[in-house]
Amino acid sequence: MKLLEDRIIKDGKILEGDIIKVDSFLNHQLDIKFLNTLAEDVAKYFKNKNINKILTIEASGIAFATVISENMNYIPVVFSKKKKTLNIGDSLWQSHVKSYTTKKDYMISVSKEFIGKDDNLLIVDDFLAEGNALRGLIDISKKAGANIEGISVAVEKGYQGGGDYVRKLGYDLYSLAIIDSIENGKFSFKRI
Amino acid sequence: MKLLEDRIIKDGKILEGDIIKVDSFLNHQLDIKFLNTLAEDVAKYFKNKNINKILTIEASGIAFATVISENMNYIPVVFSKKKKTLNIGDSLWQSHVKSYTTKKDYMISVSKEFIGKDDNLLIVDDFLAEGNALRGLIDISKKAGANIEGISVAVEKGYQGGGDYVRKLGYDLYSLAIIDSIENGKFSFKRI
Repeated sequence: MKLLEDRIIKDGKILEGDIIKVDSFLNHQLDIKFLNTLAEDVAKYFKNKNINKILTIEASGIAFATVISENMNYIPVVFSKKKKTLNIGDSLWQSHVKSYTTKKDYMISVSKEFIGKDDNLLIVDDFLAEGNALRGLIDISKKAGANIEGISVAVEKGYQGGGDYVRKLGYDLYSLAIIDSIENGKFSFKRI
Repeated sequence: MKLLEDRIIKDGKILEGDIIKVDSFLNHQLDIKFLNTLAEDVAKYFKNKNINKILTIEASGIAFATVISENMNYIPVVFSKKKKTLNIGDSLWQSHVKSYTTKKDYMISVSKEFIGKDDNLLIVDDFLAEGNALRGLIDISKKAGANIEGISVAVEKGYQGGGDYVRKLGYDLYSLAIIDSIENGKFSFKRI
């Protein structure tokens, strides 16, 4: 999606260790109008699928999931939690996730109440690099017996393998921008 | 707001240790259409204030902040992070927060890039009990030199002191539902 590629070129920053920072509009400060435009595109891509629920992961995926829901008849959003809090209950679908940014493992949890075998899910997240968070969400969906109709991320780092892994599993992954390489501080994108 | 009170009565659960669970629509599964209706009300309440940015805290505050932004001309949302990740940078406003639900202290951080002395903030969160997260957000706003125009939460547990504390500091706090007491498994609300 050219609009997102242009925004990444304009506002994205490249940090040491191949970290891409898009936190002025996507995952720390949020440009809600812009996210809405992305969400329209996601809804259009999946319009012929019979999706009844959006599954995402806290925290950065939540705003994106919210605006996608608005463009898909307000279907419910469920976000997996990274910590077990006192009020989430004991009846949980869980999966282990390795974090690329913090380098620590963590557990993600979704209450069994909110994901089950009758669900046709769209899994969404803001960012896809090695795909660890997505693997966790796929694992939880499978444990719940839910059907994964599609997966969408805003930004995919195409050269870190997460997207290819998910596509090889046979899932319909729609990434709005795929960064192919970063050379001399310049982004280049894979034509989608 | 009667609509929210009715929803709490219908879907809210009371757990041991005085924990109120509204996770079927507010902070685990999200009813986006319902959140939008709450957001309209918040925007109406603050319509005469000169607010240019929304500050919230991950994770549960993000969806509520997103829909409030949509009702306030898409002003930017900034969410404070609970962990320092590799890509947030070193130039941070920070504050210590005690959690009521996990019983652990944690640090919240906002990049100095996104909150500063020119900002007129609306601080929002999904839930207000002892007010620890709000205190952290107020602390960060003050450190940044930003002006706090108002504060809004969906659900306030009126008897745990957080709301009164914030009001005594002189802030314009708008809670959409204030739970006054829970007796014999029944919610009673403070008329707003």
